[in-house]
Amino acid sequence: MRQFQEEDFLPVEVPVGVSGRHIHLCREDLDALFGPGYELTVLRPLSQEGEFAARETVTIVGPRGVLEGVRVLGPVRAYSQVEIAMTDGFRLGLRPPVRQSGDVEGTPGIAVVGPAGALNLRRGVILAARHIHMEEERAKILNLHDEQQVRVWVPGVRAMILDNVIIRTSPHYRLELHLDTDEANAALLSGGDKVKILRP
Amino acid sequence: MRQFQEEDFLPVEVPVGVSGRHIHLCREDLDALFGPGYELTVLRPLSQEGEFAARETVTIVGPRGVLEGVRVLGPVRAYSQVEIAMTDGFRLGLRPPVRQSGDVEGTPGIAVVGPAGALNLRRGVILAARHIHMEEERAKILNLHDEQQVRVWVPGVRAMILDNVIIRTSPHYRLELHLDTDEANAALLSGGDKVKILRP
Repeated sequence: MRQFQEEDFLPVEVPVGVSGRHIHLCREDLDALFGPGYELTVLRPLSQEGEFAARETVTIVGPRGVLEGVRVLGPVRAYSQVEIAMTDGFRLGLRPPVRQSGDVEGTPGIAVVGPAGALNLRRGVILAARHIHMEEERAKILNLHDEQQVRVWVPGVRAMILDNVIIRTSPHYRLELHLDTDEANAALLSGGDKVKILRP
Repeated sequence: MRQFQEEDFLPVEVPVGVSGRHIHLCREDLDALFGPGYELTVLRPLSQEGEFAARETVTIVGPRGVLEGVRVLGPVRAYSQVEIAMTDGFRLGLRPPVRQSGDVEGTPGIAVVGPAGALNLRRGVILAARHIHMEEERAKILNLHDEQQVRVWVPGVRAMILDNVIIRTSPHYRLELHLDTDEANAALLSGGDKVKILRP
């Protein structure tokens, strides 16, 4: 395979965002974990508009192990969902599938514990499918469409090409490749590093 | 980029070996950690001839965190070396470089604790550079040479191409791609899975 040239790439540099393990909660589960009517407090805003890391954390308990201090992301959603890396899966004793956010049918559940109580999440543990958030306008210019799969080139000592990277477009999105910690660490990428998209 | 065809690959299927975090010890450090003249006991042989996972484990302590139950690999070596994944590095508070085994100049040290005492390893913590152990005879047939860098194709839902994979040849080696747990988990590979080498 030959070395890549500039013309092999789309004319865009994509910043990397690394997602540590986290949990999204529905209203009912937030009540169960933190108390009736509890409101999440903002630790810091995330790159995508309206999303934030909350000060609140929970403990998740799998068949083989425990992870403490799992960050809650806000705002509240219509469903609860736990996004972990496979390394976390081994510690917990779970083998969640790779899924897009919201596609939780048939995924494993887990016990979640907060200051006001515990609950059994019946499903919702996933490895997040890597994806690029992209502004609709930019996607149009690059001739990419929502749900398209592309290949991403990562430079460096652990250079790699990531296949099956899903383009997600919305007028509200901000350009960013979302990887989990296993993917980022395997490629030695940190938040804000830049990668390139291979021409489809 | 087009889809790969059979002729894009070398005619060999390479089984994957996943290296969890582990430590190699020199005679002096084994004495300090387990007692003078201590002999390692075999838990199980490893795929490469003469190498074994010992029953013995140690605790390693970094500036930010601790990892217990770190497996000692035998036999004793001329130098001590700790091989971790970057995920472990974040837990310990260390950022080791990617190195080939034995190339420990300028790498971070760490505190190591065993049943007979603790020692300060002055250097030797690395992220192991991914590499393929290959029989000399097979390398000759495939027209590959020791230290050559190749690209490896990983199939599956998290398909990827790993660049900068180093070929290591010896008459005593058994064919195997060695990855750390971040790399294996990022690609959803388990020990024994098969990958292919792209024609150089």
